[in-house]
Amino acid sequence: MAHINVPEGVPGIRSLVMFRPETGQHLYELAEVLLRGESPLSQAERELIAAYVSSRNECMFCMSSHAAAARCLYGDGDTTVDDVLKDMQQANISPKMKALLHIAGKVQILGKEVNTEDIEAARAIGATDKELHDTVLIAASFSMFNRYVDGLASLTPTDPEAYKEMGKRMVQGYALPKKQ
Amino acid sequence: MAHINVPEGVPGIRSLVMFRPETGQHLYELAEVLLRGESPLSQAERELIAAYVSSRNECMFCMSSHAAAARCLYGDGDTTVDDVLKDMQQANISPKMKALLHIAGKVQILGKEVNTEDIEAARAIGATDKELHDTVLIAASFSMFNRYVDGLASLTPTDPEAYKEMGKRMVQGYALPKKQ
Repeated sequence: MAHINVPEGVPGIRSLVMFRPETGQHLYELAEVLLRGESPLSQAERELIAAYVSSRNECMFCMSSHAAAARCLYGDGDTTVDDVLKDMQQANISPKMKALLHIAGKVQILGKEVNTEDIEAARAIGATDKELHDTVLIAASFSMFNRYVDGLASLTPTDPEAYKEMGKRMVQGYALPKKQ
Repeated sequence: MAHINVPEGVPGIRSLVMFRPETGQHLYELAEVLLRGESPLSQAERELIAAYVSSRNECMFCMSSHAAAARCLYGDGDTTVDDVLKDMQQANISPKMKALLHIAGKVQILGKEVNTEDIEAARAIGATDKELHDTVLIAASFSMFNRYVDGLASLTPTDPEAYKEMGKRMVQGYALPKKQ
């Protein structure tokens, strides 16, 4: 049961934004621009960063749902998401993506962990300012979403099928739940 | 120097939202609603939670600027902000505010750190669902803002006078910098 009186049976952040739509609106708008808006990173890559950070923050709801969205975006039969969540350094992703995930992992610990060497290493294999920016902001914002969802103990489904459906919906975009 | 090419001489998050106003807009709107909008917590209390979490995340820019805003809101001669930043448990604040800051401190570590006992203890001395919600979301959102500001190494002024002026402006509200 959640720590506060949110609508029953509604999972994760959705129940929290229904409790407090004034703040929820801006959280959803941020997610929409950051994960679905224009960016040099693909939507699949951005969802992968979100799932990777959520996994490191042990937030089962955000990790499962954003991993599901990323799996949809990478396409059937692609194992990138599961490979990265198992062992990022051994996954079959580009060196640039590996460098960006390494930076995201440092942001997950604390902002100051990111040093000039991390940035230069990513830049040397093609990372641009905008890619670096979006990586850091996705990692930072999931350090918020994860804490929001778990800090209020919102409902976390345990059935993998529930996340599959959620992932499909998330690919369509992040929109505030309608008033009930 | 910041890790990416942001406008020179502009401090903290302001330089980052000028680099990427599409996301910056929603970050400022979130701060405005969360810290200036309607809430059972006073604006001073909300800025205090922001400064407390930023201090624990060792984010000098956010800590100094939100402490300055909180000092303005508590008023001349009030030492609440400095007392809390020095030793929260010994500060002369209400038991309810102490319980809420204790929860904010747990959120700063990780969402799952908040347990039913923490929530019940706060509730037993009068904390409402909305106060608990806003405390957790402020703590979670500053876990984002701190990582964003430090993860991209944005400019952090060292002159205390700069923060005094910033604090006064922040009390007026959080608005996106105008395009240059």
